Amino acid sequence: MDAAEFRRRGKEMVDYVADYLENIEKRQVYPDVEPGYLRSLIPEEAPEEAESYEDVVKDIERVIMPGVTHWHSPYFYAYFPTANSFPSLLADMLCGAIGCIGFSWAASPACTELETVMLDWLGKMLKLPADFLAGTEGRGGGVIQGTASEATLIALLAARSKIIKLIQADHPDRSETDIISKLVAYSSDQAHSSVERAGLIAGVKMKKIPTDNKFSVRGDALQKVLEEDRAAGLIPFFVCISNNYKLLLNSTTIVLRFCATLGTTPSCAFDCITELGPICNAVEIWMHIDAAYAGSAFICPEFRPLLNGIEFADSFNFNPHKWLLVNFDCSAMWVKKRSDIIGAFKIEPLYLKHDHQESEFESLVRADQRFEISADVVLGLVCFRLKGSNELNETLLKRINNARNIHLVPCQLAGKFVLRFAVCARTTESRHIQEAWCHISHLASELLQELPH
Amino acid sequence: MDAAEFRRRGKEMVDYVADYLENIEKRQVYPDVEPGYLRSLIPEEAPEEAESYEDVVKDIERVIMPGVTHWHSPYFYAYFPTANSFPSLLADMLCGAIGCIGFSWAASPACTELETVMLDWLGKMLKLPADFLAGTEGRGGGVIQGTASEATLIALLAARSKIIKLIQADHPDRSETDIISKLVAYSSDQAHSSVERAGLIAGVKMKKIPTDNKFSVRGDALQKVLEEDRAAGLIPFFVCISNNYKLLLNSTTIVLRFCATLGTTPSCAFDCITELGPICNAVEIWMHIDAAYAGSAFICPEFRPLLNGIEFADSFNFNPHKWLLVNFDCSAMWVKKRSDIIGAFKIEPLYLKHDHQESEFESLVRADQRFEISADVVLGLVCFRLKGSNELNETLLKRINNARNIHLVPCQLAGKFVLRFAVCARTTESRHIQEAWCHISHLASELLQELPH
Repeated sequence: MDAAEFRRRGKEMVDYVADYLENIEKRQVYPDVEPGYLRSLIPEEAPEEAESYEDVVKDIERVIMPGVTHWHSPYFYAYFPTANSFPSLLADMLCGAIGCIGFSWAASPACTELETVMLDWLGKMLKLPADFLAGTEGRGGGVIQGTASEATLIALLAARSKIIKLIQADHPDRSETDIISKLVAYSSDQAHSSVERAGLIAGVKMKKIPTDNKFSVRGDALQKVLEEDRAAGLIPFFVCISNNYKLLLNSTTIVLRFCATLGTTPSCAFDCITELGPICNAVEIWMHIDAAYAGSAFICPEFRPLLNGIEFADSFNFNPHKWLLVNFDCSAMWVKKRSDIIGAFKIEPLYLKHDHQESEFESLVRADQRFEISADVVLGLVCFRLKGSNELNETLLKRINNARNIHLVPCQLAGKFVLRFAVCARTTESRHIQEAWCHISHLASELLQELPH
Repeated sequence: MDAAEFRRRGKEMVDYVADYLENIEKRQVYPDVEPGYLRSLIPEEAPEEAESYEDVVKDIERVIMPGVTHWHSPYFYAYFPTANSFPSLLADMLCGAIGCIGFSWAASPACTELETVMLDWLGKMLKLPADFLAGTEGRGGGVIQGTASEATLIALLAARSKIIKLIQADHPDRSETDIISKLVAYSSDQAHSSVERAGLIAGVKMKKIPTDNKFSVRGDALQKVLEEDRAAGLIPFFVCISNNYKLLLNSTTIVLRFCATLGTTPSCAFDCITELGPICNAVEIWMHIDAAYAGSAFICPEFRPLLNGIEFADSFNFNPHKWLLVNFDCSAMWVKKRSDIIGAFKIEPLYLKHDHQESEFESLVRADQRFEISADVVLGLVCFRLKGSNELNETLLKRINNARNIHLVPCQLAGKFVLRFAVCARTTESRHIQEAWCHISHLASELLQELPH
């Protein structure tokens, strides 16, 4: 499919999407299909010959829609809402086109900076304490996770890593696994199942603190458990306060009421954080507040008091994809110390993958006596360098990237500074590679001429 | 923004996207901006008054594009490729519009079934052993993860959970944390950093097995380490074989060559899996093969031999978002036993979040003497039931959902079977709620009339 066809098909798809959402209430909200319905509607194996685009599109109504539960139907009162809006759909189209991976600032500066600045905006809307904002010099800040469950897991892992470092500082002899086996995290007995799952993944004990008759964890209840567990040789390190309903997927599960931060009984909600916060802060226990759904409400002045006590928290999250009309998935998370999270996940170099077989670039390099190939060329990555010092090659790379015509990153191979030429784009043609080589070779000539002979 | 405006804006966006991708090589591949550039281009806080759509769109070129590293430029030779294609962009538009959360079959049958069947298609293209396919009765099957790192983590956690159950079956007294502190997982000393990170997250020891001069882990090397570790009282449980290059983000990191499954030395690649596989299988060690990038190549008959030995693996993954023109993120993962993964993550009830304040539905229920409200109504969830037996209410719910006009799910509250009415859709209006109540109350009347008096 070329750009011209995409323009046509894209506009057809926009109309299909608008028709779908505009007329969604005319569709039966819950499908009639039985498990296994779809397999029988399509071939057993991928067809060898491509189908026409028209036939593929026909399958949307023939194969997909009959099995869709229409979450955005006004007759959908099940489970929970997931946000969806036209502006959000437009933004997703743009993101898909840019299709960058923002694993570092340089990988796409706009990606990192927009996220940081927008989460400052959102944090200010929630009137979060300044500690949680990145600003220009802040140590805190926000980051987007996929779900509240991920945010909780990340907070737990950051807390686990922090306490391990803290303990090993005094007892260098204690192994990580030994410390982990003693760690204990807490949540309300009303808390989100993802808190339990986070404990499961992190391999730490997760205890539920009994709640009072208002379904709220009180300070004395926490205090009591902490004393018991310390007496038993355990190491309390994490408390998660969440404020969600339990969803009823079937009649065997149990519904729970709000607890903590946003309850049917605001007074107890206040008590909760403001009682638990100081206790956690006093003994270096990480407090995470999961306001997955309710968080959006705190933008309204009349609800904001329910977030009082947030100043005691180490991390906080809520889901714009629930209530702020942002398409799934977008869970906003803030921490007071970015370094706690960064420290918990050793940032390792990423790994290289590439997708062109021919290495015409290799032959160009080999044909030039001034250069050498530094590693066997496999599947389209060429590691090469100017014969000579690392300094020489560092300068060459700097000039290549400063010129901005092409973009390369370096590597080190057996102590040598090496340039990596990886064919990446689907649209890269021989002419681009020829051009790139001429450019590199020209910059190399300039550089070598400057050297004293 | 209404549907009519979306039609207009959507088509403009399609053209913008087509223009962007068609002319991407005219854009400077790497941006000139300095860290912090973006914050200065926009207000300190979210504007109180909405901006016009035109002004928002202007910001794409004014604020975003100057800071974008253009990953799809034919002059981008850095890092690694991420797939992007017009058909994939069209599919994403449709997914965004449907916007369902597929956490269970019923939550959207098409979602679950399409994923299962398409991964069978893909598995057949790779000629995976039949154990890895779901088919109609298979115990294995494929699932889509976000990244290869997630796939590795999930395999590790599944393996951890499996070994813990195995050990506790013989030694019910041994605690989970005690067992975890003895577990040890292995990867090649050439393996992907995500393997290490997975160990870090799961809180288990992760050891790197020395490779031979072909950068390949050999059977005797694994055998040796296993014997040493068992002698030291450790419990080997997981081996990850990956076949990626290490990416050079900066000159301080080190490039590594392919190891294992797809190497510059295929013979050693063969040796590797076929040597390690039987050792792992013999002693109940989970073998995961991460072919994140190279996996796509195995679709070609000439590369498929490099996957020989896959029959010994418990799990396998590769990334269609690398080489199969599927937009990020799409990492395909297969397991021989679905139950191993499901068992590792206790499926807990999900939690309810909803977004309407008024509970006009509550007043309708309260006005009907035949019904009772089962829990305080907070923020738009109404838990209600017919006065009478659980059976009566189960029948009512069955009739409501069978009628297909609206969709509800039940819950259990203090032993009582209760119906949950959660206002979910952005487009739900009073009339829909009125309609829903008339429908429910009508079905209730029918039901009650059938009862003997």
